[in-house]
Amino acid sequence: MNKKYNFYAGPAILPLEVIKKAQEELLNLNGIGLSILEISHRSKDFDDIINTAKDKIRNILNIPDNYSILFLQGGASFQFAMIPMNLLKGGKADYINTGEWAKKAIKEAKLFGDVNIAGSSEDKNFNYIPENLSLSSDASYVHLTSNETIGGIQWSEFPDTGDVPLIADMSSEICSRRIDVSKFGLIYAGAQKNIGPSGVTLVIIRDDLIEKGADNLATMLKYKTHAEKNSMFNTPPCFAIYIIKLVMEWIETKGGITALEDINEEKAKILYNLIDKSNLYRGTAEIKDRSRMNVTFRLSTEELENKFLQETVKQGFLGLKGHRSVGGCRASIYNAMPIEYVNKLADFMENFENHNT
Amino acid sequence: MNKKYNFYAGPAILPLEVIKKAQEELLNLNGIGLSILEISHRSKDFDDIINTAKDKIRNILNIPDNYSILFLQGGASFQFAMIPMNLLKGGKADYINTGEWAKKAIKEAKLFGDVNIAGSSEDKNFNYIPENLSLSSDASYVHLTSNETIGGIQWSEFPDTGDVPLIADMSSEICSRRIDVSKFGLIYAGAQKNIGPSGVTLVIIRDDLIEKGADNLATMLKYKTHAEKNSMFNTPPCFAIYIIKLVMEWIETKGGITALEDINEEKAKILYNLIDKSNLYRGTAEIKDRSRMNVTFRLSTEELENKFLQETVKQGFLGLKGHRSVGGCRASIYNAMPIEYVNKLADFMENFENHNT
Repeated sequence: MNKKYNFYAGPAILPLEVIKKAQEELLNLNGIGLSILEISHRSKDFDDIINTAKDKIRNILNIPDNYSILFLQGGASFQFAMIPMNLLKGGKADYINTGEWAKKAIKEAKLFGDVNIAGSSEDKNFNYIPENLSLSSDASYVHLTSNETIGGIQWSEFPDTGDVPLIADMSSEICSRRIDVSKFGLIYAGAQKNIGPSGVTLVIIRDDLIEKGADNLATMLKYKTHAEKNSMFNTPPCFAIYIIKLVMEWIETKGGITALEDINEEKAKILYNLIDKSNLYRGTAEIKDRSRMNVTFRLSTEELENKFLQETVKQGFLGLKGHRSVGGCRASIYNAMPIEYVNKLADFMENFENHNT
Repeated sequence: MNKKYNFYAGPAILPLEVIKKAQEELLNLNGIGLSILEISHRSKDFDDIINTAKDKIRNILNIPDNYSILFLQGGASFQFAMIPMNLLKGGKADYINTGEWAKKAIKEAKLFGDVNIAGSSEDKNFNYIPENLSLSSDASYVHLTSNETIGGIQWSEFPDTGDVPLIADMSSEICSRRIDVSKFGLIYAGAQKNIGPSGVTLVIIRDDLIEKGADNLATMLKYKTHAEKNSMFNTPPCFAIYIIKLVMEWIETKGGITALEDINEEKAKILYNLIDKSNLYRGTAEIKDRSRMNVTFRLSTEELENKFLQETVKQGFLGLKGHRSVGGCRASIYNAMPIEYVNKLADFMENFENHNT
């Protein structure tokens, strides 16, 4: 079998060291003679796992003490609803429309209050991050999607929203670069791109927003429920949280978030430099807003695009087909993607160009 | 290290063969060169997993064609809210109060409509299944908890609710015995006791109830959303679903549900027979309603109980402490618990009695 290079948009590549470690101890966690798949979430061993995961996340992302770290279920899609259910409460919120994911968040928010679209890049098929936002002074919060996997665009600087809490869906970039968490009221991320497998959602929430949450909700829909019980009001997704812990340990061995940010920058540059000097490949996002996680590009003709995509699969480069809603090509190069794989893809792309122009 | 025997109430023991198989292919699923932890849920390999899991569940539980099988997140606790949000719609529902789990379901339902307690065993600390239910003819549904892990009681025969849909929380007994699914409108079960790891909830729902679900809910809160998208409206908990698939294959190799039911019956008998002839141990549930999954018992004094529990841990029998709300002892003997482990526990209990009376 050929070596496989996982460029999927998500669920996505995990560090090989993490999967190997999980494999190693799958039958016997910490030498206790039981699997992580079958221990009680009320056991000391699981307590250690969830608390270590939280401590490491706090440390790696430099999260201030007045924020709680929660592990929830349902993915970002569930947060699209849980956020307005808790925090909109019939009021108004500003949403910035940068693509498919932002649109999904907007759709859910509209069920629970007024939504002001404070900025949008829909006019150019979401290939840039809008500037000159029209923020409302009376908004309950401002919501943005920090990285859009489909358009391949990413916020570099975040807007100053003053006293209005800023909420960000960071599913596709969490832990890939330094973030000033204190600028945000709430950050959420489905784990399955940068920090773990599918089945767990990381929520970082400022404590005053937990308190402000609506009271008349079902128990499982309140942030307060989960914050008060250390994400163990009911049985959490133990294995997924365990993998997050392993990924955080891996990030530490890599040199922490600063080192990762540098490598991620370098990986993206390899592909964007190649695209910019090419006559065959063409980047789809505006240069200033290009994502360092999802490199989106087209080829000069659809015919060549199809040939290119077929060839990538043969060579073991998987997941390079663009999202079905926009077509084209996309290389997702999350945290766990080694720079060697990116170099191999770049070599292949150059080679393909040489043989097809 | 001593051999460990996992009698935890949940997350609970999984078949050793299943964990071994998962370990074996954790780095390389089906020889594709990628891990189940990092493949796209839109890939053919995952499609095969989720569809095989569903087919096997349908076959094992003999589920009629007019029922859909869903894999959701949030555990039974989330279903406590999702059910009334979809199906109560301000109307009335009958709930039968058999213990802590039923009470939690009742609490959530009250947020969304009128709840009639059609039967309760609270008068005797939930040590029996109530008879002579006062069901309402105009209820939207009747809800029961088919097995209560804390009291250690289980429904043998289910009530005839006529045209009113019967809904059951089967978290702690799903796939442990034959069930006539056609008698139910909806069956739900957190996976982490009998069929998988934590992080996924099995929902079996009659198709007309999917259609009847409330329309004004958040997308992720509607059964319809998940039914229409084969549980992949958003990224599902892929690994947990994969383990369910392996558990279903394991059930097949064991001879299916009839064989499992026989073994489960036998396992329970070993412990109950010992308890019934003992002068030291005393069963807490009424004999007619005893659970075949959770054997609850007390010792003659608290002092002996503490000594017993300390001794079990030393001998590698884990999780035998009763739920903190009732105390005492509990042996959870779900599907994956081998009869040899139950015999070992019985030997230990006899031995302990001989030395302490």
